[in-house]
Amino acid sequence: MSLESVQQYLQSHQQEAVEQLQELLRIPSISADSRHRADVHRAAEFVRDRLQAAGCTAELVETAGHPIVYGEWLGAPDAPTALVYGHYDVQPPDPLDEWASPPFEPTIRDGHIFARGATDDKGQMFTHIKSVDAWLQAVGKLPVNVKFVIEGEEEVGSDNLDRFLTAQRERCRCDVAVVSDTAQYGPELPAITYGLRGIIACEVKLQGPKQDLHSGVFGGAVANPINVLAQLIASLHDTEGRIQIPGFYDDVLELTAEERKDFAALPFDEQEFCESLGINGASGEAGFTTLERRWARPTCDVNGITGGYQGEGPKTIVPARASAKITCRLVPDQDAHKVLASLEAWLRQQLPPGIELTFKSFHGCPAVLCDRNSPYMAAARRAVATGFGREPVLIREGGSIPVVASFKQILGVDTLLLGWGQNTDNLHSPNERFSLEAFHQGTQASAALWAELAKP
Amino acid sequence: MSLESVQQYLQSHQQEAVEQLQELLRIPSISADSRHRADVHRAAEFVRDRLQAAGCTAELVETAGHPIVYGEWLGAPDAPTALVYGHYDVQPPDPLDEWASPPFEPTIRDGHIFARGATDDKGQMFTHIKSVDAWLQAVGKLPVNVKFVIEGEEEVGSDNLDRFLTAQRERCRCDVAVVSDTAQYGPELPAITYGLRGIIACEVKLQGPKQDLHSGVFGGAVANPINVLAQLIASLHDTEGRIQIPGFYDDVLELTAEERKDFAALPFDEQEFCESLGINGASGEAGFTTLERRWARPTCDVNGITGGYQGEGPKTIVPARASAKITCRLVPDQDAHKVLASLEAWLRQQLPPGIELTFKSFHGCPAVLCDRNSPYMAAARRAVATGFGREPVLIREGGSIPVVASFKQILGVDTLLLGWGQNTDNLHSPNERFSLEAFHQGTQASAALWAELAKP
Repeated sequence: MSLESVQQYLQSHQQEAVEQLQELLRIPSISADSRHRADVHRAAEFVRDRLQAAGCTAELVETAGHPIVYGEWLGAPDAPTALVYGHYDVQPPDPLDEWASPPFEPTIRDGHIFARGATDDKGQMFTHIKSVDAWLQAVGKLPVNVKFVIEGEEEVGSDNLDRFLTAQRERCRCDVAVVSDTAQYGPELPAITYGLRGIIACEVKLQGPKQDLHSGVFGGAVANPINVLAQLIASLHDTEGRIQIPGFYDDVLELTAEERKDFAALPFDEQEFCESLGINGASGEAGFTTLERRWARPTCDVNGITGGYQGEGPKTIVPARASAKITCRLVPDQDAHKVLASLEAWLRQQLPPGIELTFKSFHGCPAVLCDRNSPYMAAARRAVATGFGREPVLIREGGSIPVVASFKQILGVDTLLLGWGQNTDNLHSPNERFSLEAFHQGTQASAALWAELAKP
Repeated sequence: MSLESVQQYLQSHQQEAVEQLQELLRIPSISADSRHRADVHRAAEFVRDRLQAAGCTAELVETAGHPIVYGEWLGAPDAPTALVYGHYDVQPPDPLDEWASPPFEPTIRDGHIFARGATDDKGQMFTHIKSVDAWLQAVGKLPVNVKFVIEGEEEVGSDNLDRFLTAQRERCRCDVAVVSDTAQYGPELPAITYGLRGIIACEVKLQGPKQDLHSGVFGGAVANPINVLAQLIASLHDTEGRIQIPGFYDDVLELTAEERKDFAALPFDEQEFCESLGINGASGEAGFTTLERRWARPTCDVNGITGGYQGEGPKTIVPARASAKITCRLVPDQDAHKVLASLEAWLRQQLPPGIELTFKSFHGCPAVLCDRNSPYMAAARRAVATGFGREPVLIREGGSIPVVASFKQILGVDTLLLGWGQNTDNLHSPNERFSLEAFHQGTQASAALWAELAKP
C-alpha cells in the first residue's frame, strides 16, 4: 500500500519538517513593507529549494513585484492534475510589544509554533510540499500530477498573480486547485470551506487648510478634516449596522434557508467567542447571526486612521489633514469595481467647503462560492477524514482569497479550500501561531488527497 | 519729558532687543513634551535674568510642573500697580518638515522673525520686559509699579498658575493686569481684545477586541473601535454645524445687536481669508458670520486621531483600539465642568457592545468678557495709539487665555489684552513668525502704557 508507506515516512520525519518550517518562519517576508524586499525574495528561494529537494522542478518567476515560485511534478500522465496555491509573504507584525516571543523567532509553546506567518500561510502551505516530498521519497512517485504556485503578494492584494496565471495559462492548466489558507471550524472539527468573502480596499485622504491652525483663532470658521472624516466614516453605516452606501446591497446573494439552517446547527458559543476576543458583546448588522455576519454578509471596516497631533498631552489645533484606510468585505454576487465606485461617490458627495478628498484604491477581488457536490469535493472530504480522523463540516469563511476567483475565471477550475488552522491562531495579530498537531494532520490529509484524487 | 527719553532709548537699542529675543527663541521650551523639561527650565532662567538685568527683582517659583518667573519693580508708592502676565513655553513644533527654517533657529526674513514662540508668546511678552528696562535705564524709575508673572505651562493648560495666584495673592495684588498674547485686528490695525473664548480639552480612548483582528475572519461580527469613534465624533455636530451635545448651548451668552453691528463694520474679506488658509470656502455653524463663529460661538474640534495600521499599503484588520484628542472652545457664560461632563455622558450613552471608553480631561477655563469702559481701558487705548500711530479697534478673540479668568476670580482685576501679533503669524503652526516692526511698536506702546496708567 503506497499511502501507508507515505504515512509512515511522514510519521518518522516530523521533527525534520518542523525544523524546516521554523527556518522559513525566520524570514521576515513582509510584502507590504518595501524595506523587507530582500527578505521576501529570500523566502521565495527557500520555497523553491524545498520543492527541488522534494523532487519537483521549481523556479522563481519574477514579476513587477515579488516573485512567484512555480514548481511541478508531472509523472502521472493518465491521472488528474492538482494545482497547489499558497503564499510565502506575511502581514506586518506590529504592534511588536504585544508579542510574547519575537514574530520572526519561531518559538514552540503549548504544542503550537508561534511566529508571524505560522498559520497564514507558511505553515499551512508547507504541508503540501512535505506531502509531495514524502510520496516521492517513500514511493518514488505521486498518484496524481501536482503543480505549485506559491506567491509573495497575497497580503498586499496579489497584484501580479492574475497576470501570471493569464500569461502561463497552459503551464497552470489543472483539474482542480488546492488551497490551505483557511481554518478548521474549531478544535478537532476539520472543515472544508465552500465560500469566501471578497474585498475592496482603499485609502481616503482629506486635506483642509494648508497647515495646522490654532483651534482658538480659526476653530468654528473652517471645516476640520478629522471631524469631516469622522462624519464620512459614520455615514457608512446606519444605526442598525446596515451599510448606507447607495446600491451597496443591490447584488448581494442572500443566504439560502438551507445554509442558514446548516450554520445554525454548527456548535457556536457566542459568549465564549466574545470572551476569547476580550469584548462584552458582539455587534453588527441587525437581522443576522454572528456566524452569518462573519461569513455571508458584507462589511465596511476602517483598518487605520490618522490625523493631527499624535504626541503626549493636548495640542489646540485644527489639523491640516486626516486619512483612513478602509476595506469592505464583499459577498456573492457583489462587483468589486462597482462597490468601490459607489463608495468613492458616496464620500465625495458629502464633502463640505474647505475639504479636498483623495481616493486611492488597492487591488480587490470578488467573493466565491464553490460546488459542494463535485467529485473533487468528495475526494477531499475522504482525505481530510483520513488525515484528521474525523469527517469535515462544510462551511463558509469571512476572509478573502482572491486567487480562488482567479482560478475559476482564468483556469476554469474549482478550488478545494482545506483549512488546517484555527480562528484562534491570531492570524494578522500579535502572537500568530499554528498547532503542531494540525501541521502533521494536514500533511497526512494532503498525502491522502493525492491518492483520493487519483481514484476514478 | 521722561517718556520721550524712553522712546529714544528704545529706538537706539532695537538691535540689542532683537538679539536677546533670538536667544530666548533658541530654547525649545516645549511644555507638552517631558523630554524638553530642562529646556523649559532654561527659558525660565533666561526670563528671570533679563528681568534682573532690567533692574527688577526676580526669581523662579518652582511648581509641581514648570516654574513661574515672578519679578517686580515697586518704586512708585502712590501710583497704580500693573501686573504683566506672559508665558515662556511654546507649542510642539511638528510637523517639522513644513518649516522653511528650523523652529528653534530664529531666522529673520521679510521683516519677520521666524521661530516657534516668536509671537506666542515669547516675542510679545518680551516687549514688556524691554519697556521696563528702557524706563529704568533711561529715566531711572517707572511711573507705575510693575509686577511680572511669566509662566511655563500656558500651552498645557496652566495647571499650576491658579494655585500660585491663590497662594501668593498678596504678592500679586494689582490694579490691572496686562497681557500681550493676542493679535492686532489686521496689518496696521491695532486692537484691544475685550473678550476671549474658554476651552475644555479631553482625550477619548476606545478599546475593542483585546488585539487587532483579521478583518475577514471577524469583520462584521464585532464593533470596530475606529468606526465607533467616527460615529461618536460625527454625533458631536448636526448637518448645520450645530453642536448636538445635550444642553451644550443652554448657558451661551448670545452676541448683542451692537456687537454684531460692530463686527460687521470691521474690514473682513472672506475670500482672502480662505485663500490665506488654502481652502475653497469657510464652513461652520449656520446662522453666524465667520467672525462671529471665530470669536463668539462655541466649537468642538478634534485635534488628533489615531487607530489601527499606520504604515504603507493596506492591512486587513479590525483594530483593537482608537483614540482622539478633542477640544471645545467655550463662550460666556458656559461652564467648563458642565460642558465636559455633558460631552463625556453624550459619548458614553452611544457606545455599542464590545467597546470600552476611557475619558481623560485636561485643564480647561471659562470664556471672559472685560469692561470696555474702564479708565484702564482708556489708558491702554491712548498708549496703543502712541506706540502704533493709530487708534485701536475693540474686538473679541477666539483663543483662550485662562489666566484672564483667574485674574478676575482670584485677584479681582480686569485684564488689558494688548495684542501686537497678527492672525497670519502661524501661531501653533509651522513657520510661526512675528513682525519686527510690531515688536518695536509693541515695546513703545508698553512704555507709553506705564505713563498713561499713572495719569489721574
